[in-house]
Amino acid sequence: MKKITKILLSEKEMPRQWYNIVADMPNKPMPPLHPLTREPIGPDALAAVFPMELIKQEVSTERYIDIPDEVLDLYKIYRPSPLFRAVNLEKALGTKSKIYYKYEGGNYSGSHKANTAIAQAYYNKKEGIKRITTETGAGQWGSAMSYACHHFGLELLVFMVKVSFDQKPGRKLLMNTYGAKVIPSPSTMTAAGRKILELDPESPGSLGIAISEAMEVAVQDPYTKYSLGSVLNHVVLHQTIIGQEALIQMEKAGDYPDVVIGCFGGGSNFSGIAFPFLRENLQKGKKTRLLTVEPSSCPKLTKGKFMYDFGDSAGMTPLLPMYTLGHNFIPEKIHAGGLRYHGAGVLVSQLLKDGFIEAKAKMQRECFEGGVLFARTEGILPAPESNYAIAGALDEARKADLEGVSRTILFNLSGHGHFDISAYEKYFENNLPDHELTQAEVDEAISKIELPV
Amino acid sequence: MKKITKILLSEKEMPRQWYNIVADMPNKPMPPLHPLTREPIGPDALAAVFPMELIKQEVSTERYIDIPDEVLDLYKIYRPSPLFRAVNLEKALGTKSKIYYKYEGGNYSGSHKANTAIAQAYYNKKEGIKRITTETGAGQWGSAMSYACHHFGLELLVFMVKVSFDQKPGRKLLMNTYGAKVIPSPSTMTAAGRKILELDPESPGSLGIAISEAMEVAVQDPYTKYSLGSVLNHVVLHQTIIGQEALIQMEKAGDYPDVVIGCFGGGSNFSGIAFPFLRENLQKGKKTRLLTVEPSSCPKLTKGKFMYDFGDSAGMTPLLPMYTLGHNFIPEKIHAGGLRYHGAGVLVSQLLKDGFIEAKAKMQRECFEGGVLFARTEGILPAPESNYAIAGALDEARKADLEGVSRTILFNLSGHGHFDISAYEKYFENNLPDHELTQAEVDEAISKIELPV
Repeated sequence: MKKITKILLSEKEMPRQWYNIVADMPNKPMPPLHPLTREPIGPDALAAVFPMELIKQEVSTERYIDIPDEVLDLYKIYRPSPLFRAVNLEKALGTKSKIYYKYEGGNYSGSHKANTAIAQAYYNKKEGIKRITTETGAGQWGSAMSYACHHFGLELLVFMVKVSFDQKPGRKLLMNTYGAKVIPSPSTMTAAGRKILELDPESPGSLGIAISEAMEVAVQDPYTKYSLGSVLNHVVLHQTIIGQEALIQMEKAGDYPDVVIGCFGGGSNFSGIAFPFLRENLQKGKKTRLLTVEPSSCPKLTKGKFMYDFGDSAGMTPLLPMYTLGHNFIPEKIHAGGLRYHGAGVLVSQLLKDGFIEAKAKMQRECFEGGVLFARTEGILPAPESNYAIAGALDEARKADLEGVSRTILFNLSGHGHFDISAYEKYFENNLPDHELTQAEVDEAISKIELPV
Repeated sequence: MKKITKILLSEKEMPRQWYNIVADMPNKPMPPLHPLTREPIGPDALAAVFPMELIKQEVSTERYIDIPDEVLDLYKIYRPSPLFRAVNLEKALGTKSKIYYKYEGGNYSGSHKANTAIAQAYYNKKEGIKRITTETGAGQWGSAMSYACHHFGLELLVFMVKVSFDQKPGRKLLMNTYGAKVIPSPSTMTAAGRKILELDPESPGSLGIAISEAMEVAVQDPYTKYSLGSVLNHVVLHQTIIGQEALIQMEKAGDYPDVVIGCFGGGSNFSGIAFPFLRENLQKGKKTRLLTVEPSSCPKLTKGKFMYDFGDSAGMTPLLPMYTLGHNFIPEKIHAGGLRYHGAGVLVSQLLKDGFIEAKAKMQRECFEGGVLFARTEGILPAPESNYAIAGALDEARKADLEGVSRTILFNLSGHGHFDISAYEKYFENNLPDHELTQAEVDEAISKIELPV
């Protein structure tokens, strides 16, 4: 009998530093540009939006950055997170391969988002900030930030993408329970929101729109800053604790992954688990494949264009070099709300362009099928987002079996689906539509991108 | 700064035996009686309902019972469970006391119920059973049993108390996702259910009714057995792993509780954490107080009568010596569905009668107030049931502060409230009614108890 394997680390074994992939990238990321001058912007240009310590991390080229004691202390309520070998899933598949997963849903927020929420709230508090604004898709990020802000004595205002606000009332209520204020986006509270509502009063919203709204409110008050849950370098940095831990845990398991998989929205959970393994590839000649899985309805990495574009809908951010579907692109209302973002983070984009990572797109129904199999075998009900990583892992195991080989597969189970159970209901009712954007549709969307001249 | 304290055990430190309080009880529990003869029933009388190994545990007087390897193996996906010192809650209270909690909600089922579900499914499978029937209140027990049955290849049919079926669709869907069939109770599937519906087509149901329905189906087929999530001795036995672990963890913390607290439905989570500490009282002269907290709307321990009564509504069980409100009592529709049971387990009842444990009753709103404070400080959203234990712990801390002393308080956080978020919404809307049953109302309910003559 295969024994269930859970690999835990003690608090003493928890990494004390985040890892910054920029230090090891052969081609460094291109700089953010001012939308009008097209000149690289300096750190000062971001000071209205972020606290200085996070801006320093955003542009840092240091390989390791110390995790502050206050952040480590709060990490310890849920970290180190467990790494499991999915023996019951392996049995159900009848695969020769070994499937491991790192579980990031066992904390208060239900996802990996707590790792950066705690850090961001801490740095804002340290610099005297009183209030944070942010966006959230499915609500994992907003939930993570709600408790973190309450803990450090900060107010929080969350713009929640309207389709998720309606689909997932549970996460909105969770944010309220933690003391945050939650507004459906687009809203009438901001010029950016009002502009969208004028064009389409029924707009389901998008992460790009919600970002514009949150930024607009933040820049109006010196004691209010904005906070982003993915995409940016400092967010990715904070998530690398996932992969740093997983490296130690895989070593304890006496194993090493042939492929590391994460679902893909803006890039933070994928980068968090993958970048420390990519460092091993770059520094030590390891050959681990690093695979992102995105929705076929929002295929920026597999069908989008690498170009400078805005990070938000209204064009309030600098121009960022990234794979994009266009900053005004509004994806279909899939249940993996956290993956409904038009662009990819700068670091992942550059690394994909340079061939260091891989991307594939999957349909919604097949991902839920994988999620249900996972729940029934491993017990944990996955977040809809995480189902994309599971589906990617199942593909890899089946492919290895067809090739007659055994591979070691590691994926990031980024969160639980307790507040997404209605999506599972729709799956069982055979009422989860599949959407696939064709290359022609993507090209058309990209052709409509309007940038300032 | 008080540091966050999380006390983990390694898998090697996990207890290998359950603890049976019967061995140490000065007054042994009185036997179950046949309803007509009023003679003690033997193990054989239960054979139509339970597998023999569980019946043996039900009547065992052995102090320790080995946990089978297959059960230990599945326990390891989530055990040992963490024990926390609630430093942020202590800070918010400004208390001198130390508050610890054992967290049993971090597993697939979201509550302590997994501890007995896994054991019960295993023993049924081992004896060739194909299908299990059971009842569930809020759904934690049904969820726990759903995955456990799927894991061991058993079918599961769950009768879910109708008010919870309607209030908590999330847990019903979770059970479906794990592959179980869920029926609202009272149902037309059984004679017991039809009889209730004839009298009251709008009946909200009760655990007592759901038990009758599940038993009625089970006894009709030799390959179907019934499974109960609380009350019985073997269920309590399986839960003692909680307290066995907590004892080791408190020792690691360099501390020992002055009081141990659990919420009270049928008795399993309270007994699970409390009985190993009661053993220390009985064997080693320790003086830890053991405190149950029940809803004021279902006050069997604080206002009920110690007598022989049925465990279910239709009178299918033997007569059990217990504190009861009457087997036909239907409690108010409070959100802590798991606490809506008319009686108390035999072991707890005897121990309360003999003065070894204490009981108090609390109102719903105050318990939710405690739960929200707990969520905002400690991060975890508690199950409505667990809010009663939290409220009990807050009472103890405040009382100690009034007395000018510092006490060490330990409570069992039996589950998370992710599927109960609508109850929190009602709390914030100031829409959670308080119900308190008076002694006169209780006495009237008890006077209506009809037993066969």
